[in-house]
Amino acid sequence: MPDLALHRHRERGSTERDVLDAILDDVLAGTLSTVVEGEPWVVPMLFARQGDQLLLHGSTGAGALRHVAAGAPAALAVVAIDALVVGHTTFDSSANYRSAVVHGHLTPLSDEERTIALDALSERLIPGRTREVRPMNRQETAKTLVMAMPITEGRFMVKTRTGTASEPDEDTDAWHGVIELRTVALAPEPAPTSTAAEVPQSVRDFAGARVLA
Amino acid sequence: MPDLALHRHRERGSTERDVLDAILDDVLAGTLSTVVEGEPWVVPMLFARQGDQLLLHGSTGAGALRHVAAGAPAALAVVAIDALVVGHTTFDSSANYRSAVVHGHLTPLSDEERTIALDALSERLIPGRTREVRPMNRQETAKTLVMAMPITEGRFMVKTRTGTASEPDEDTDAWHGVIELRTVALAPEPAPTSTAAEVPQSVRDFAGARVLA
Repeated sequence: MPDLALHRHRERGSTERDVLDAILDDVLAGTLSTVVEGEPWVVPMLFARQGDQLLLHGSTGAGALRHVAAGAPAALAVVAIDALVVGHTTFDSSANYRSAVVHGHLTPLSDEERTIALDALSERLIPGRTREVRPMNRQETAKTLVMAMPITEGRFMVKTRTGTASEPDEDTDAWHGVIELRTVALAPEPAPTSTAAEVPQSVRDFAGARVLA
Repeated sequence: MPDLALHRHRERGSTERDVLDAILDDVLAGTLSTVVEGEPWVVPMLFARQGDQLLLHGSTGAGALRHVAAGAPAALAVVAIDALVVGHTTFDSSANYRSAVVHGHLTPLSDEERTIALDALSERLIPGRTREVRPMNRQETAKTLVMAMPITEGRFMVKTRTGTASEPDEDTDAWHGVIELRTVALAPEPAPTSTAAEVPQSVRDFAGARVLA
């Protein structure tokens, strides 16, 4: 069961950046790491990619997020396990996965940029939802800190493994192959306080789709 | 869409440590963070919890892993998104999630400990598999670095959100509720080089199970 980080696989016909974008657009949550007083500081969070930047958001009251916003070096990491790779031995067992780490510095967005970015964060989770509900108001926007991290060539790393188990290098009849994993969205469940007669289009579309490719 | 880190939810009838263990035993991969020359260093990896310690493994050749093994402060973070919470507004939308960050220092395991730990890492992914295949041999064990991080009271943080969308604080007929996500294992697919007549029990058991609760 070799380390996740060992086996670099270069996708045919696509650049590292294409692979990065595909991972970032597919995985819902990541972990943001920075350094606070010499120690690693990590927080799991939702995020969205918008062109050449990552958007992250948090409460204006969150101290460490402000630390990151103030210019500390940061890294956003995401990982998706797509399959278990069952080898003919445990040593040859592994996982198919997609992972990415993006390094950079975060910049807090202005009031105007923030409104657009918060809609982008909403649309990334449930496409079409922002058109179905009222816009965020000034009080709501003011409560939220939104930061952007540029995606810069040479400052990100993508690693993936695909395919089935490797051919045994010894005589064996041990089964080997893959077990694929799939994340799916179940049927939407209204809250008890929801009086809407119909499930909105954005929610219907999401619930019918596979979440991870 | 408030920040993932904002809403702390204390589980009824279970300690923080119980909640931590449940998350660590359920999520397949995490990100290991440390500090290298003042910058955050992050690598996604598989891991296993064994009692009061986390087991992590990598190639003996991986420089930064050796750095962590040599005593640098580290943090393992995991996150699972269990549902999208669709609010009556985008501001009131969120996600149900489970996340954990465990801080500590990693210790490289001895040869003897390593063999046991590598089996534990295999069993954590596919329970029962180690009994179906030959044990790892000396050459294989020697190629792998395994580290342990103790789980220490006061050095981990667990955050979760459960439940449905909050009751609107304004007059609205906008739909609100949740869309649960589920990760499932598909049917096992043998590699072309696999000549085994039957799918082994461990693989059959895994493929029938839900991967994330």
